Amino acid sequence: MSGVMNFKNCGSVLITGASRGLGLQIVDSLANGGFSPGKIIATTRHPAKKCSVSNLLNLDSGKKNKIFVSLLDVLNQESIEKSVEEVGQLVQEEGLNCLINNAGINLVADFHTVTAEQMIENFHTNAVAPLMITKAFLPLLKRAASRGGAGSEASMGIQRAAVINVTSLLGSVELNWGERAKNFKWYPYRTSKSALNMVSRCMAVDLEPDGILCMAIHPGWVRTDMGGSEAPLSPEESISSILSVIGGLTEKDHGSFLNFTGEVLPW
Amino acid sequence: MSGVMNFKNCGSVLITGASRGLGLQIVDSLANGGFSPGKIIATTRHPAKKCSVSNLLNLDSGKKNKIFVSLLDVLNQESIEKSVEEVGQLVQEEGLNCLINNAGINLVADFHTVTAEQMIENFHTNAVAPLMITKAFLPLLKRAASRGGAGSEASMGIQRAAVINVTSLLGSVELNWGERAKNFKWYPYRTSKSALNMVSRCMAVDLEPDGILCMAIHPGWVRTDMGGSEAPLSPEESISSILSVIGGLTEKDHGSFLNFTGEVLPW
Repeated sequence: MSGVMNFKNCGSVLITGASRGLGLQIVDSLANGGFSPGKIIATTRHPAKKCSVSNLLNLDSGKKNKIFVSLLDVLNQESIEKSVEEVGQLVQEEGLNCLINNAGINLVADFHTVTAEQMIENFHTNAVAPLMITKAFLPLLKRAASRGGAGSEASMGIQRAAVINVTSLLGSVELNWGERAKNFKWYPYRTSKSALNMVSRCMAVDLEPDGILCMAIHPGWVRTDMGGSEAPLSPEESISSILSVIGGLTEKDHGSFLNFTGEVLPW
Repeated sequence: MSGVMNFKNCGSVLITGASRGLGLQIVDSLANGGFSPGKIIATTRHPAKKCSVSNLLNLDSGKKNKIFVSLLDVLNQESIEKSVEEVGQLVQEEGLNCLINNAGINLVADFHTVTAEQMIENFHTNAVAPLMITKAFLPLLKRAASRGGAGSEASMGIQRAAVINVTSLLGSVELNWGERAKNFKWYPYRTSKSALNMVSRCMAVDLEPDGILCMAIHPGWVRTDMGGSEAPLSPEESISSILSVIGGLTEKDHGSFLNFTGEVLPW
């Protein structure tokens, strides 16, 4: 429950890839699941898909006007910078407390079918984009971190400033062996998530002096468009669990790779 | 010494990126260091750089005619396939016993300077190219593996067929922490080597049924153009050590990440 409570001390959360799947569920659960951060900023890729924007705004069922939508194509530097400007005007001197790099794709290909183009495309979206987005939002994260956070001045966590990278167990090189390795032989996806884990760890090292927490979390295998219908977890279950974990993060979790249950995973 | 001996039972070794640095040293040490495989196939990128070809051929100091040069641009699929054809004609029904994916680059950039383009370029050369090259040479590796290898029918190793990926300690996500993480904040390089480690592990899973060994090795920090002049190891020392390790690889090393000293490294 401490995780739930900590979102109440979190002024703003930004979620990339919020128009569907886990991103949409994060927005829904934050708005309606008792987590209650100050502002929920949902980003989505397509300006044309007005439906996704209104879907997001409709999640504000209590009419608390907490949800804001910003257009952001994670592969487009200009689009990222435009969103930073918009979000900066929204959060003002309070800065951005929590950036959730959730947007991701899975280009399914095995050893025999995989192409260089698929490898690069999946890597760009899943590993490079979170890096470029974090770089761009750094001034807003630093602004929030420098205010020290509600409650405890020197501590790390989402009440102060945090970067959360939604990664996957399939990005664990160690676990890709034996029985576990016989399924999901997805070269582009697995490689992109290993790369994201390194990006996450590198950023943790560099964000630490500013008091910004950075970690990677596996949301479980979830029944979304990406996870398919046989997955054991509903989006609600997965997100309720990872939001509790995210809400409870402290210094000891800085630079970590956690399961949706909060357990440490091997790299 | 068993590693040195095992090269004598290895019919052919192919080394990518052989025109300089560690690749050139591998060719030199294989030709002149007592390892003595049957054929040494050195690949290099630029058809224009005839000097690098004659430098390579000049390493055959004993005039044993063991060194063969094949032009191969690791980023160009057509060039890869052309090299496969050439090498196929050279090795004939014996196939290729040992593929050393050595070609690599280091685009130095830290958190503040790194661009998406640098991330993608380093990833392409260091992680995607070894995958595409291994896919392309698979028929030649399978041909060698199906012959069972000199001596022991069912075993794995370079006397039968092996894919060796030259990776780096800097690709270890686990070791990128604390004191160790304060230097070499090279986002493109570190990320590309983590990605290569995942590619190596994925390939190990898929090559096992054919009896092809696959692993990743860290050559140490070496005084090359890439390693710089302060590095503790000479190219001779590094390569003599990794060739002994490679020569001695068996089933137990399949899917591993080893230091140049032969120790297991954490992912």
